[in-house]
Amino acid sequence: MKLEALREQVLEANLEVVRRGLVLYTFGNASGIARDEGLVAIKPSGVPYEKMRPADLVITDLEGRIVEGSLRPSSDLATHLALYRAFPGIGGVVHTHSEFATSWAQARREIPCFGTTHADYFHGPVPVTEPMPPHEIESDYELNTGHAIIRRFGALDPLRIPAVLVAGHAPFCWGKTPLDAAHNAVILEEVAKLAFRTVTLSAGTQELERVLHDKHFLRKHGPAAYYGQG
Amino acid sequence: MKLEALREQVLEANLEVVRRGLVLYTFGNASGIARDEGLVAIKPSGVPYEKMRPADLVITDLEGRIVEGSLRPSSDLATHLALYRAFPGIGGVVHTHSEFATSWAQARREIPCFGTTHADYFHGPVPVTEPMPPHEIESDYELNTGHAIIRRFGALDPLRIPAVLVAGHAPFCWGKTPLDAAHNAVILEEVAKLAFRTVTLSAGTQELERVLHDKHFLRKHGPAAYYGQG
Amino acid sequence: MKLEALREQVLEANLEVVRRGLVLYTFGNASGIARDEGLVAIKPSGVPYEKMRPADLVITDLEGRIVEGSLRPSSDLATHLALYRAFPGIGGVVHTHSEFATSWAQARREIPCFGTTHADYFHGPVPVTEPMPPHEIESDYELNTGHAIIRRFGALDPLRIPAVLVAGHAPFCWGKTPLDAAHNAVILEEVAKLAFRTVTLSAGTQELERVLHDKHFLRKHGPAAYYGQG
Amino acid sequence: MKLEALREQVLEANLEVVRRGLVLYTFGNASGIARDEGLVAIKPSGVPYEKMRPADLVITDLEGRIVEGSLRPSSDLATHLALYRAFPGIGGVVHTHSEFATSWAQARREIPCFGTTHADYFHGPVPVTEPMPPHEIESDYELNTGHAIIRRFGALDPLRIPAVLVAGHAPFCWGKTPLDAAHNAVILEEVAKLAFRTVTLSAGTQELERVLHDKHFLRKHGPAAYYGQG
Repeated sequence: MKLEALREQVLEANLEVVRRGLVLYTFGNASGIARDEGLVAIKPSGVPYEKMRPADLVITDLEGRIVEGSLRPSSDLATHLALYRAFPGIGGVVHTHSEFATSWAQARREIPCFGTTHADYFHGPVPVTEPMPPHEIESDYELNTGHAIIRRFGALDPLRIPAVLVAGHAPFCWGKTPLDAAHNAVILEEVAKLAFRTVTLSAGTQELERVLHDKHFLRKHGPAAYYGQG
Repeated sequence: MKLEALREQVLEANLEVVRRGLVLYTFGNASGIARDEGLVAIKPSGVPYEKMRPADLVITDLEGRIVEGSLRPSSDLATHLALYRAFPGIGGVVHTHSEFATSWAQARREIPCFGTTHADYFHGPVPVTEPMPPHEIESDYELNTGHAIIRRFGALDPLRIPAVLVAGHAPFCWGKTPLDAAHNAVILEEVAKLAFRTVTLSAGTQELERVLHDKHFLRKHGPAAYYGQG
Repeated sequence: MKLEALREQVLEANLEVVRRGLVLYTFGNASGIARDEGLVAIKPSGVPYEKMRPADLVITDLEGRIVEGSLRPSSDLATHLALYRAFPGIGGVVHTHSEFATSWAQARREIPCFGTTHADYFHGPVPVTEPMPPHEIESDYELNTGHAIIRRFGALDPLRIPAVLVAGHAPFCWGKTPLDAAHNAVILEEVAKLAFRTVTLSAGTQELERVLHDKHFLRKHGPAAYYGQG
Repeated sequence: MKLEALREQVLEANLEVVRRGLVLYTFGNASGIARDEGLVAIKPSGVPYEKMRPADLVITDLEGRIVEGSLRPSSDLATHLALYRAFPGIGGVVHTHSEFATSWAQARREIPCFGTTHADYFHGPVPVTEPMPPHEIESDYELNTGHAIIRRFGALDPLRIPAVLVAGHAPFCWGKTPLDAAHNAVILEEVAKLAFRTVTLSAGTQELERVLHDKHFLRKHGPAAYYGQG
C-alpha cells in the first residue's frame, strides 16, 4: 500500500518534469524512497514517458538489489542511492538535462544567487562538483558521481540547497518528497535561466545582499515562514 | 456589486499574466482598487491559478486590514498598498518574476529606451530602485519595498512610466485598471526582451532620439493620440 | 469581386504573422493592393485579430482617402502607401515588431548574410534606414518613414531584398502579394534569429561568399530556379 | 512491400523533425535507403508537410534516376545520394536548418563536446566542412556539398559522429535508419543549444575529459552498452 503511493508519486514526479519542458525523449529520471521500508522506486531505463505506468517503476533496496519489477532500472540508479544514503532528510531525487542548468554545469560554474527568485528556494549558490579522477569514471561511475556530489556538499545542508550541478554533466535535485524534488528541478531551471541572462547583461553583477537572501529564504521556509496558506 | 466587478477584473488580470507566460507555478500577484470604497482586492498567497475563483480574492482596506476573505493575502500586499497610497491615479498593480524583466532587475540596470515599442508605452527608461538598507529588509520588508519604489519615482509620473524594476528582485507594474496593469506587465517583458537582445548585438546602442520617443508615446497617449479606434 | 479577394488575402496575411508568433496584442499590420483599381486594403487600427473580419479592413486609394470601411485604418497607412507608390512591383506590405528583427533594428545594424537560409530569400544584407531628422518626425511621420525606406533603397531592387529595418523601430517587409509579404516577414525573423546567434558565437563571422549567395538565391528565384514543384 | 515500409519510415522521419520544431515552412528533408534494392525514398521539393502522403515520396536509384513518383525530388537529393554511396553503414539522411545547429554552421565553428549529453551521441566534436571552391558551387553544387562532407570526414567513423555542419549552410545528420537520422537531428539541435549557452557563459570552457566522453558514449553504444532495456 505505502509502496503503491510511492510508485504513483514517483511516476507523477517523472511526468511533471516532462510537462515543464525539462526533458527531451527519455532523458532524465526521478525516484523516491520509503524510508521505513528502505525501498526505492525509480524510473526504468529508456522507456518512453507516455507509456509509463506505476507498475513499470523498478523497486530496489538501498544497495540496488531489485525487489520488484521486470525492467532494467535507470542507469543512474547508483547515484540516486548514494544520495539517499548520505542525505537522510531527503525523500526524492530528480535528474534532468534541463537546458539552462545543464549549460551552467557544462561551463563548470556554480550559479550565484543574483535575485530573490533564487533566494526563495536555495539558501546559497547552487554548487558545482569537482571533476572526477579517471579511475572514478572508469569503474562504478554512477556511484562515484554520487560520491562527488556528497564530497562537494561537505557541511552544506542538502535541504537548504536542494540541487547540485555535476561538472560537465547536468543537475541533480532532491527534496522531501519526489514531487518536491521535481518542483526544485523546475525552479532550478528557471533560476539558471535568469542567472544566464543576468551575467549576459552584466558580467560583474554582484550577488544578492546576504540580508535580502536570508529574508526571502526564511519567509518561505522554517518556523517564521509567512508565504502561502501554511 | 462594484466589489464584484473588481474581484472579476482582478482575477482576470491574474489569469492574463499566466496566459502570457509571465508566471511559473504560483509566482506573481495582481490587485485592484475601488477608490471610492477604499477597498483593495488581491490574489491569495500560494493558491494555484487554475483553481482560483473570484471569491478566493482577499479584500482589504488601504491599511491592509482584511475586510472579506478567509485566505491569507499575497505576501506582497504591503507593497501594493504603498503604491495605491502614493500614486492616486492608479487602479491596479501587477507583480511578476517574468524572465527578461527580472534579469534586468537582477543585473540592477534600468531598461533604456532603444526603440519605438518601448516608447509606445513608457515615456522614459524603466527605472531600477536603489538597494534597500538592511534595517528596511529586516522589518516591514514588503512595505519598505513599496517605499523604495516611491523614493525612486520622486517627480516621475507613474502613469507615464507604469513599471519599475526592484533591484535584485523583479518588476512591479501598474495601470489605470487591473487589466491595464497586466497589459503593461506583458509589454514590459517584451520590451525587456528586445532591449536584452539589442545590447547583446551592440553594447553601445544609443537611446532612441527624444523627438522620436515623444512622437510614439504621444500618438498613443493623451489628447493628440491617433492610434486605435479612439 | 476582385476587392473581395484582396480583403480575404489581406486578412489572411494579418493572421499568418499572428499564427507564426510575430505579433503581440494588436501590434503589426498587413495590407495589399489591387493595382488596376489603385485601391489598398489595410488592417484597422487597434482591433483584436481574433475578431477581425474581411469587412473590417479599410479600403483607401493611393493617396489615403477612405473608399470603404467605417473603422480608422492602421496608423502606419501612410508608410504602406509610400511603398506602393515607389515600388511598383510589390503587391503587399507587412509591418511587425517581431523579436529578433526588431532587436537588429534597435541596434541599428543591417543583417549581414551569414548563411544560405538568408541567401535563399534576400539577395544581399537586409538594410537599415538612416535616422530621420527631427522635422520629418514631427510632421507627417508615417509618410516620412516611407520616404526614409525609399531613400535607403536607392538603386536596390525591392523584389530581391523584400525587407528593411527602420532604425530604432522595426521591420517592414513586402512581396508580390500580401501572403508573400507575410511569408517574407516570417523568414526575416528566422534569418534575424540565426544571425543574432551567429554573431554571439563569433563576432567576426565573415559574410557568405558571393558565389554561394548567388547560387542559393538563383536556385529559388528567376528563370533558372529549380526549387519546388515549379 | 519493403519499399512501402521505407516510404512510411521516411515520411515519419520528415514529420518527426517538424513535430520537434526543427523545420520552418517546407525547409528540410529526410530520406532513407533500401540497400538491397539500391533504392532511395526522399521528400518531394517544396510540398507542405501537412499534405504529404507516402505516395508523394520520390523513389530514385543511387545515381538519382527517378524510379517512381510524379513530383520533383528535394533539390538536395544529390547530397543525400553522395552520402549513401560513401557511407555504406547508414540507412537514413536528414537535413534541416534547425536554429542552433545552423548558427554554429554559419559561424563556421565545430561544436566541441562540453558535456555528457553530447558524449552520449557523438564520439567527438561535430565537424564543420571546409568552404567549397567557386567551381564546386557553380556546377553540381548539391553533389559537391556531399563531397565536401565526405572529404571532411576522412577517417572519421560516420556512425560514431552521425552529423556534420556544412559551413555557411546548415547541418546534415544520418543514422542506421531514417528515424534514427531524425533522432540524431533532434539531439544535434539540443547539443548545439547547450554548447551555445556554455560558450556564452564561459568563452574558454574546456572540452569534456576524454575518459568521461568515452564512458558516456560507450555506456549507450556498442557491446558494453548498459543504457535502455536492450
